[in-house]
Amino acid sequence: MIAVVATIYGGVETGGTWCVCALGTGPQDLVALEKFPTTTPAETLGRIVAFFRAHAAPRAIGIGSFGPVDVDPRSPTWGSVTTTPKRGWQRTSVAPVIRDQLGVPVAFETDVAAAALGEQTWGAGREQPSLCYLTVGTGIGAGLLIGGRPLHGLVHPEVGHLRLPHDRERDPFPGACPVHGDCWEGLASGDAIAQRWNAWPPDLPDDHPAWALEAEYIALGILSIVCVASPHRVIAGGGVMERATLLPMVRERLRELIGGYLDAPVLHDLDRYLVAPALGDEAGVLGAIALAIGVASERDQGLPSSPTRRSGPSPRT
Amino acid sequence: MIAVVATIYGGVETGGTWCVCALGTGPQDLVALEKFPTTTPAETLGRIVAFFRAHAAPRAIGIGSFGPVDVDPRSPTWGSVTTTPKRGWQRTSVAPVIRDQLGVPVAFETDVAAAALGEQTWGAGREQPSLCYLTVGTGIGAGLLIGGRPLHGLVHPEVGHLRLPHDRERDPFPGACPVHGDCWEGLASGDAIAQRWNAWPPDLPDDHPAWALEAEYIALGILSIVCVASPHRVIAGGGVMERATLLPMVRERLRELIGGYLDAPVLHDLDRYLVAPALGDEAGVLGAIALAIGVASERDQGLPSSPTRRSGPSPRT
Repeated sequence: MIAVVATIYGGVETGGTWCVCALGTGPQDLVALEKFPTTTPAETLGRIVAFFRAHAAPRAIGIGSFGPVDVDPRSPTWGSVTTTPKRGWQRTSVAPVIRDQLGVPVAFETDVAAAALGEQTWGAGREQPSLCYLTVGTGIGAGLLIGGRPLHGLVHPEVGHLRLPHDRERDPFPGACPVHGDCWEGLASGDAIAQRWNAWPPDLPDDHPAWALEAEYIALGILSIVCVASPHRVIAGGGVMERATLLPMVRERLRELIGGYLDAPVLHDLDRYLVAPALGDEAGVLGAIALAIGVASERDQGLPSSPTRRSGPSPRT
Repeated sequence: MIAVVATIYGGVETGGTWCVCALGTGPQDLVALEKFPTTTPAETLGRIVAFFRAHAAPRAIGIGSFGPVDVDPRSPTWGSVTTTPKRGWQRTSVAPVIRDQLGVPVAFETDVAAAALGEQTWGAGREQPSLCYLTVGTGIGAGLLIGGRPLHGLVHPEVGHLRLPHDRERDPFPGACPVHGDCWEGLASGDAIAQRWNAWPPDLPDDHPAWALEAEYIALGILSIVCVASPHRVIAGGGVMERATLLPMVRERLRELIGGYLDAPVLHDLDRYLVAPALGDEAGVLGAIALAIGVASERDQGLPSSPTRRSGPSPRT
């Protein structure tokens, strides 16, 4: 058993490629941060546990994981990765292992929900009652916060597998998703861009037709998120969005797609509605720290100690 | 001033065509119900007020309105219809008029959010932590409940204006939406079916190709709702869904579209996931009564008396 220091929190982002561990209370107060490749579950979970054992033990740990994951606190497989294509990680328990080995309360979310929480707490989503954090990188995913809580339902948002209009005359590429072909991720992820143009996205010049097509698909996907969940702000991150000329193109196309129908002043000023992340690569691990602060606060208030109490549905009043 | 009887609640559904008023505490206990055409705002609101004045005054009134509506309790135009195409109803205050003329607390929601609440309280959505009530009729709309509360964000769900794959070889119809052309509603509402086939939908036989196409579009739209909000159950109502052969076709196509990717047992048994309403035409007005019960309960508990306290975002914990 390691000593518990009450005011330090742990954050873990287990990404598909990299794993990040941090200790602290926020972006201005990180006492340790370590990044290492996500390899096998045993090795990766071992390094996470070792990171925390090497430092002061946190009051609680938040985990944001690549998915799909089981975030249902009533489920016997809560805290695990489920049907991922990532080799060796199918049906892998993550949160219970960390909780049991370190003996601290643990909160568990998708990596994108954690990033949304990080941006809401310290970044581009402050003071927004609801929020979508979208990542367009190797894949496409989104975390939604409603009233400060990650939206869970039957599973969690899987926006990458939305089906969108695909004009095969303009874009004959059949799509890169092994399951669905031309779903959103199959058309617009970094992998899809690379396969379609046979080039690494950062190597495509700003005036390459790839970018207008990409703006089309990203705008269509964001429109779906707006029509269903109507978040107060959308933060678009991920490697593909690092192309500086892309976000303004997406805004312009989204404006056309909305067509003046949705009646909210901010939708007439998409510069404020659809924004870049403020925390960069650290949104996920910082959001994981925010999750840890939340779960510790609930324990302190004596609320029921389900593993992810803060992320369960709010009670019916 | 009229006498207040503590245990009776009022429900109002202001639909685009019909308005329904009811008094009672639930489907087994309706003491009065009246239905009349939705005409001008002045006449319609006058009849609503007259209905309640003619009976014992309710403890509170819930209103489910056709939209788009302003459901933001912090907004100066809370409780009004906003950009509707319905003649005479643009920017019409509804809830404040009823509240002020009858002097009782009022809750205000979209008609589909009210229907979702009715089905969750007494119908096909019982015990579901989250729920989508979809209506496919003259238009297409959806109400989403998360943890028992209607989902609001910047506005409210506007699923009718989703953009979906539209194979113009299979379906050359350009779409019926005056703003967006071939959005979901433009392709799949009752009006779209009527325009495409030049026939009233109830007159099309079960083996007409209209129904396979309709199943395609409804499944694609539901897939969007599942990928973004992941509700625990989808209830599909509205006039078009009354075609008994349609729902099984939608389930079959939805199963294909999911492709086994989303990992939840109920998605392998879509008969339990995608269901018909249990309350029929009365879901909306019963849900409005549930809204009234909710707002009265909050008043009794001394919670802050914003006009729709029950439907605001849950507090960040």
